[in-house]
Amino acid sequence: MTTLINGEPCDTISVNERGFLYGDGVFRTLRLSGGKVLHWPRHYAKLASDCSALYLACPSESLLQDDLSRLTGDVSDGVVKITVTRGTGPRGYMPPRASTGTRLLSLSEAPRFPEHFADTGVTLHLCRLRLGHQPRLAGIKHLNRLENVLAAMEWDAPAIAEGLLLDEAGYVIEGVRSNIFMVKEGRLSSPDLSRCGVAGVQRERVFAWAKQQGVDCRIRDIPLAELLLADEIFLVNSVHGLWPVKELPGYRCTHHPVAHEIRDWLNHDPD
Amino acid sequence: MTTLINGEPCDTISVNERGFLYGDGVFRTLRLSGGKVLHWPRHYAKLASDCSALYLACPSESLLQDDLSRLTGDVSDGVVKITVTRGTGPRGYMPPRASTGTRLLSLSEAPRFPEHFADTGVTLHLCRLRLGHQPRLAGIKHLNRLENVLAAMEWDAPAIAEGLLLDEAGYVIEGVRSNIFMVKEGRLSSPDLSRCGVAGVQRERVFAWAKQQGVDCRIRDIPLAELLLADEIFLVNSVHGLWPVKELPGYRCTHHPVAHEIRDWLNHDPD
Repeated sequence: MTTLINGEPCDTISVNERGFLYGDGVFRTLRLSGGKVLHWPRHYAKLASDCSALYLACPSESLLQDDLSRLTGDVSDGVVKITVTRGTGPRGYMPPRASTGTRLLSLSEAPRFPEHFADTGVTLHLCRLRLGHQPRLAGIKHLNRLENVLAAMEWDAPAIAEGLLLDEAGYVIEGVRSNIFMVKEGRLSSPDLSRCGVAGVQRERVFAWAKQQGVDCRIRDIPLAELLLADEIFLVNSVHGLWPVKELPGYRCTHHPVAHEIRDWLNHDPD
Repeated sequence: MTTLINGEPCDTISVNERGFLYGDGVFRTLRLSGGKVLHWPRHYAKLASDCSALYLACPSESLLQDDLSRLTGDVSDGVVKITVTRGTGPRGYMPPRASTGTRLLSLSEAPRFPEHFADTGVTLHLCRLRLGHQPRLAGIKHLNRLENVLAAMEWDAPAIAEGLLLDEAGYVIEGVRSNIFMVKEGRLSSPDLSRCGVAGVQRERVFAWAKQQGVDCRIRDIPLAELLLADEIFLVNSVHGLWPVKELPGYRCTHHPVAHEIRDWLNHDPD
């Protein structure tokens, strides 16, 4: 893995880094493919919006693009992670007045997933951990990710590709590392993420697909019982793209025509 | 500030440190006074319990005591922070199978507070941020502290010493960096921290005082409206000890006999 910190190659951070002390920062995970970071404008807009929600200074787009080209060099495929924090400071929750943030970009190899994950689909574990509600942090990809860590520790069977997270009220929210959609009678639905969860860029792209195709797509509360009656369920994130769900406790599906259509569009549409 | 990482002087951590990536760790803040870390057995027990709740390996007591004596040396007063994380790992919420944790101890100067804070008391800001419920993380002093950071950013008047946090249901939970008690008709009450908040060592010591004195002390849900009718309110933490509350919106108190008695006991009882 290669890392640039504030533009310079470096693999350590200060022990006074607020990203470490308090998780005081945000991040993005992007796919590098064909020497190009995919869907950059959407990722940068989301980074800026997440920074704004936490009153963090967001690095300029041109600064990050310079970093990106130095980081990736001749590498054509991989995963880029961009982290923006409030920088270093003395002990204490209150940020120093003159806090200058830290920007950290790292490049790692793209993980390889079995091909059938994107085709016949994946099996989900239903997580026992329920996401708590915190509207001030909901939707943001921040560095406070203990809920995801605890959820990811719930299973280790290689046959299970992802975990399904509900909130404390029993509504479907997301996968541990992905967003979720259900298809019912030709309509799409995706969970409301205003109380918890992370609103990813690929979720937005599915909304864009639905709009372009004139397909009804609603953001709403989805009880687990309703998800289990879906015609199709699928997951999206920026690293693995779209995975149909073939199985989760109480649900089984072998036919994914809508998910496959959206998958192909997501894989080829440049926006 | 001096820092020991896994026993060695160092002021940086790896960019692959899970404490930084996900806030995957816990910490303790202790007072060094007269060359001795105060209330060590209670702090170690709480550290071990917090580690256990997150399935983190807790360093042995003797290892930490060796670190402590090397860290503090001849220094007699200060603040020691102990952080224990899940250590380094590749990108991904799932911890690596063979994760060896990181232990980090740092020593900094003890902050100086105006003397009247512990005597006539402090003024509180009522935070707009409400704590979300997450029973799996409640009570634990973990590294996911964005709620505290956002709350601490709500005020910057030097006359306001601390912020009061309620939960999403409107119950009183804690100060941004302290635990809270109310006194009413000779009885103590402190908020139930099973859904959110951090259960500190000084809170336990107040429970011990009450037990020793035969004073009724209840852990329960306290609506804000009830707190405002208290005879006395006070805050405790390991750095500043006990502070009576003289003012918060809707509350004013100039007489703190119970708080002063407990303050004196906390300052002198060795346990």
